[in-house]
Amino acid sequence: MNPIQIVGFSNPADVVNVVYSLAVGALPANETVISVDPQGTNAMTKRYLEDFAVRQTFGSGRVRVDGERIKSFAAEFDPQPFHLDEEAARHTIFRGLAASGWHTAALTMRLLVEGESKPAGGIIGLGLDELCWPLPVRPGDELRVEGELGEVSLSQSHPHHGLIKIRATTLNQNGEAVQVFVAALIVPRRNG
Amino acid sequence: MNPIQIVGFSNPADVVNVVYSLAVGALPANETVISVDPQGTNAMTKRYLEDFAVRQTFGSGRVRVDGERIKSFAAEFDPQPFHLDEEAARHTIFRGLAASGWHTAALTMRLLVEGESKPAGGIIGLGLDELCWPLPVRPGDELRVEGELGEVSLSQSHPHHGLIKIRATTLNQNGEAVQVFVAALIVPRRNG
Repeated sequence: MNPIQIVGFSNPADVVNVVYSLAVGALPANETVISVDPQGTNAMTKRYLEDFAVRQTFGSGRVRVDGERIKSFAAEFDPQPFHLDEEAARHTIFRGLAASGWHTAALTMRLLVEGESKPAGGIIGLGLDELCWPLPVRPGDELRVEGELGEVSLSQSHPHHGLIKIRATTLNQNGEAVQVFVAALIVPRRNG
Repeated sequence: MNPIQIVGFSNPADVVNVVYSLAVGALPANETVISVDPQGTNAMTKRYLEDFAVRQTFGSGRVRVDGERIKSFAAEFDPQPFHLDEEAARHTIFRGLAASGWHTAALTMRLLVEGESKPAGGIIGLGLDELCWPLPVRPGDELRVEGELGEVSLSQSHPHHGLIKIRATTLNQNGEAVQVFVAALIVPRRNG
């Protein structure tokens, strides 16, 4: 595993700040060189900024949503009746047990990490432009993700990285979208 | 607990579709009446659409982020070196173990559910307009949420519900924002 290569910083916290600043356009005045390749030994199978192009698509594996895990996830993170108990959920707007949207988002992340996009630095999200949950996720649903590249952009001031925007649609076993988001990921350039 | 009251639907799946449609403006042609109050017995302490106004603020409790839980959450949902192992994380862009953004989002949801906003129907998110993670969340961080109402709107065609938009900023113990999102929630009207 190659270490992170950093030029121009003494404080590690600055590094993270600068990287995040790439996305929000709030870069510090001084120029900086950052190169990140935490999984450098897998570079052969990893994709750099130059390997991405608008309208490329990628797929994922599948994950089955377990009813007990819906409840235990909700007990920890989203304790509301429609996520916790079948009988209580029947009397809510969801008309039955439904996964927390954050559970769906987390499962989607797992599918993305193990999916086909494989950015060289890992899947490092700076944020989302949008996220919606058009349909509930039910116990036993089998989810997969279809991704499409919506944007690939260089940073003028930070030539060693760029941003890609991925529209990730999470589909159930009936091909219905249960979640859609557009995420901005930071991706290193090949010779960064 | 009061059951959901529905007029005009025979298929439960339609109900969920209609409710979600409220947010995306894709309402079916026929008028529909939906009233939801899964926690009706707590109505005295719950807030209806009429109780919300733009620029209202609300707070939350606090949650301490456990380092072992950062790793186990990541092992299940976001298995990348910067979320899984201190030593491996040191050599990544995060310069140390950091929580998955989805872990932060899930913890934020817990704080919201138990926080001061208390919409009458529960916290039912239709989606987010934006989400970002400006700084990493570290083991031992103590998070809380500051919310502000950015929008309160009626539905012309569905007079029994409305939407509120909440800007939720998740802060660490130093008062630094580690996550910001703007969420659209569906909220029942008082006499819906």
